[in-house]
Amino acid sequence: MAKKRQAARARKKPGSAGKARPSAELKAVIDDLVIGNRILYVQDVVDGYGHISARHPHDPERFLMSRARAPGLVVASDIMEFGLDGELTRPDARPVYSERFIHSEVYRARPDVHAVVHTHSPTVIPFSVTQVPLRPIRAAFFYPEVPVFDTRASAGWTNLLISNSALGKALAQTLGQNSVALMRGHGNVVVAPSVRVAVYRAIYTEANAKLLLQAKMLGGPITYLAPEEAALMETVQSRHRPGHGSDRTWEMWKQEALARTGKVR
Amino acid sequence: MAKKRQAARARKKPGSAGKARPSAELKAVIDDLVIGNRILYVQDVVDGYGHISARHPHDPERFLMSRARAPGLVVASDIMEFGLDGELTRPDARPVYSERFIHSEVYRARPDVHAVVHTHSPTVIPFSVTQVPLRPIRAAFFYPEVPVFDTRASAGWTNLLISNSALGKALAQTLGQNSVALMRGHGNVVVAPSVRVAVYRAIYTEANAKLLLQAKMLGGPITYLAPEEAALMETVQSRHRPGHGSDRTWEMWKQEALARTGKVR
Amino acid sequence: MAKKRQAARARKKPGSAGKARPSAELKAVIDDLVIGNRILYVQDVVDGYGHISARHPHDPERFLMSRARAPGLVVASDIMEFGLDGELTRPDARPVYSERFIHSEVYRARPDVHAVVHTHSPTVIPFSVTQVPLRPIRAAFFYPEVPVFDTRASAGWTNLLISNSALGKALAQTLGQNSVALMRGHGNVVVAPSVRVAVYRAIYTEANAKLLLQAKMLGGPITYLAPEEAALMETVQSRHRPGHGSDRTWEMWKQEALARTGKVR
Amino acid sequence: MAKKRQAARARKKPGSAGKARPSAELKAVIDDLVIGNRILYVQDVVDGYGHISARHPHDPERFLMSRARAPGLVVASDIMEFGLDGELTRPDARPVYSERFIHSEVYRARPDVHAVVHTHSPTVIPFSVTQVPLRPIRAAFFYPEVPVFDTRASAGWTNLLISNSALGKALAQTLGQNSVALMRGHGNVVVAPSVRVAVYRAIYTEANAKLLLQAKMLGGPITYLAPEEAALMETVQSRHRPGHGSDRTWEMWKQEALARTGKVR
Repeated sequence: MAKKRQAARARKKPGSAGKARPSAELKAVIDDLVIGNRILYVQDVVDGYGHISARHPHDPERFLMSRARAPGLVVASDIMEFGLDGELTRPDARPVYSERFIHSEVYRARPDVHAVVHTHSPTVIPFSVTQVPLRPIRAAFFYPEVPVFDTRASAGWTNLLISNSALGKALAQTLGQNSVALMRGHGNVVVAPSVRVAVYRAIYTEANAKLLLQAKMLGGPITYLAPEEAALMETVQSRHRPGHGSDRTWEMWKQEALARTGKVR
Repeated sequence: MAKKRQAARARKKPGSAGKARPSAELKAVIDDLVIGNRILYVQDVVDGYGHISARHPHDPERFLMSRARAPGLVVASDIMEFGLDGELTRPDARPVYSERFIHSEVYRARPDVHAVVHTHSPTVIPFSVTQVPLRPIRAAFFYPEVPVFDTRASAGWTNLLISNSALGKALAQTLGQNSVALMRGHGNVVVAPSVRVAVYRAIYTEANAKLLLQAKMLGGPITYLAPEEAALMETVQSRHRPGHGSDRTWEMWKQEALARTGKVR
Repeated sequence: MAKKRQAARARKKPGSAGKARPSAELKAVIDDLVIGNRILYVQDVVDGYGHISARHPHDPERFLMSRARAPGLVVASDIMEFGLDGELTRPDARPVYSERFIHSEVYRARPDVHAVVHTHSPTVIPFSVTQVPLRPIRAAFFYPEVPVFDTRASAGWTNLLISNSALGKALAQTLGQNSVALMRGHGNVVVAPSVRVAVYRAIYTEANAKLLLQAKMLGGPITYLAPEEAALMETVQSRHRPGHGSDRTWEMWKQEALARTGKVR
Repeated sequence: MAKKRQAARARKKPGSAGKARPSAELKAVIDDLVIGNRILYVQDVVDGYGHISARHPHDPERFLMSRARAPGLVVASDIMEFGLDGELTRPDARPVYSERFIHSEVYRARPDVHAVVHTHSPTVIPFSVTQVPLRPIRAAFFYPEVPVFDTRASAGWTNLLISNSALGKALAQTLGQNSVALMRGHGNVVVAPSVRVAVYRAIYTEANAKLLLQAKMLGGPITYLAPEEAALMETVQSRHRPGHGSDRTWEMWKQEALARTGKVR
């Protein structure tokens, strides 16, 4: 806690904030965020338009996210700092994502969330425009449910972008205590306690959507993951163990992402 | 306007036209055209047979397009100049696309159009041979509609190629004021105010076709983009803002295309 | 013709045949055959088990094909010479494809055929085990029809491999004067007047199967290519014109294949 | 046999076991195991979580498998030795796969099995959650049948992982004398007399699932491989012949896997 307050003080010295040497903890989050951007792109979960953010490790009222840029190209110097109003904490001329309010309002509503991904996950979108619920075959984190948010219900005719706090709040409200919410005709939002778990969930949200689409094509009744099974799976996943869970896939995805997208600094 | 007339005069000096140093504006269009060819190939929107053209920046009565060559291989020196009759403006022994009349007749009919793409987009073709209309889930530019052109209706038995002005005119008439028209059993034509937006639309036409096919497989009613929503989306897209819209994806697609297909000059 | 007889004589000198410097014409066919192997693999039309052959340019009673090897790995020195009995014309200890009788019997039955491809084309096989005929959406060479050969009908219980002349003859009979025949639960055979056209047809057989599968998934009536249209398309395709038809795609596929699979000699 | 006993003796000298120079036979199995891991990953049959093991060539009571690591990253030094109780034969601080009991219990129940693959094969999982049996179109080794194992039936609510001997035994019992068993909502287990055949079967299990899914989408009756045909195919496959069967595909898959995933030692 002392460390957090100290860091917060450091940030408040005018003019020095941006140049202060980041703590090891902050540097680690930025590294994960850059790698996470690359992974989501290489794994075909975001196209040019998704984004991923992390809550600031020293200040829960701030979050970190790239300037407006395709995730596959993001480097460490693209990462900017935002407040929970969705605005930059320091003046910066570079363009910012219009939909930063997805992130700011989820961080505001969900203190347990430390990373947010917004994707245009290709097999997930069809579930957002039909009446077929996205239910879990393998993705335990789909419980309690995967709600669908429609801008039309909250705000009438819009351009579908979550480009202000009011829309962000409405989306966060639909998300509730779930880990994934679909956005009609647009994509989805995935939240998690860390960048690595958020990336893991975003990738397996797409994977589960593919499995369910194929099961629907085979026809007949489908055996979904039971809530009791999902709870036991999540208990295992939530324990960080080297070589297991999202740690194992992160090592693999990171290596692939770096091989395919070049330098991160 | 003075600049355009000057350029037109320069071109008319016999023998000098082809050798005149291209203006920065012309060079930029040629660069985009070459990169656009590569992007369309790397993004799997064209196979060996599609093509992309741009209206000449100094003379609306001319357009630029590669010699007859697979888009993934096009380099700057392949770009040739055509008149609105679909013929070369200067003698050149290299082969030309048989279907150049798609481009010439669209430029004639639509002064607002500055780039035309003809693709064999794999998930779009099925919509051209069934009664299922290609409607927008995410692709706002599908409004007013995506008509289907059938050579059989205009010209009876043909080899399906738009290889003369009459067929080009008939296709342009079916396209009307829309941005996309399907060509039965063959592919589609996509038009836009610039090369970058044309590439963007061609890629998202395929993406929307995939989403719609999957939504159909899930079954039940589908929530399409409303025309009011699409109009608001198009308003945003039509403003060029660095880091946003087609500018963001162009940066990413360009980098990928160059990494995978080699030199452009 | 004089050239052919001379070459045939040269081959008959015992012991010298294998070492004689190949004519430019023969070398060109071998080059195309090696590249064709690589292309079919890179374009996902063959897995480890398909093969492609060419009729010998100097002797219609012989054909050229790789030793038993995955197509993606074939180099020039793997190419062997076979007679129309399906056996090697010269002793060679290296393993040969069990299914060489597909090739030998087609060359025997069809003097017009100069190249044969046997693939395990993934989207074509489903058509071989259902009652849904593989009809043309874009593939003009599907006319008159795409028959299905079933070893069970000709020979009862077998291991499905065309591993003797009798099965080869039965398959050639089912193929008749068509360009493509399916082999139940196994793959297909594609024939053409040249290696390049055979590769083109094998790739577009798979492409058309994908289009038809997707059109079926959309539901409702499908507009197939009319036989009159197909005939006009084939007339264009059969004229070799640089930059057009299979010449254009060959240039692209060759470049891709070489970039992805390494040296050919 | 003498060789095996000698090796077994060597292993029993306390402290020396781990350091003894492996026999050529053991080294060959470890090499195949590492390459097999890479192949399964490159061929998209395992994601970050599958695994492959081999029975120890000198001691049928032991088996070899990587430490807990994504298969695409496994190197020779990751390979550990386990007993049929699923536990390490020597102390080692590195993490082990929770689901090692899939392997140990199959080796215990099936003396004919020398390699076991556990995959999360994407098109196979849908068959595990529907009532549609995975039947053979091309995969002869699906006979007698492909049973489905459900942890729920054996053990009620679990996290679906086969993380103890009791669950491993229940799975082995469902597998019976078959080559493949599905695991509901999770993946499948594939067994074979060697690493190369196990890899071959795991890849063609996924391939056959894709063919069957597509055949189902075309609709109508499906002609499956008859048991008599399958038996004849398996007879051919079980004879090791250079250039044929799994030998041909292994050469190709190995080359691809090494090109895409880097060093193995």
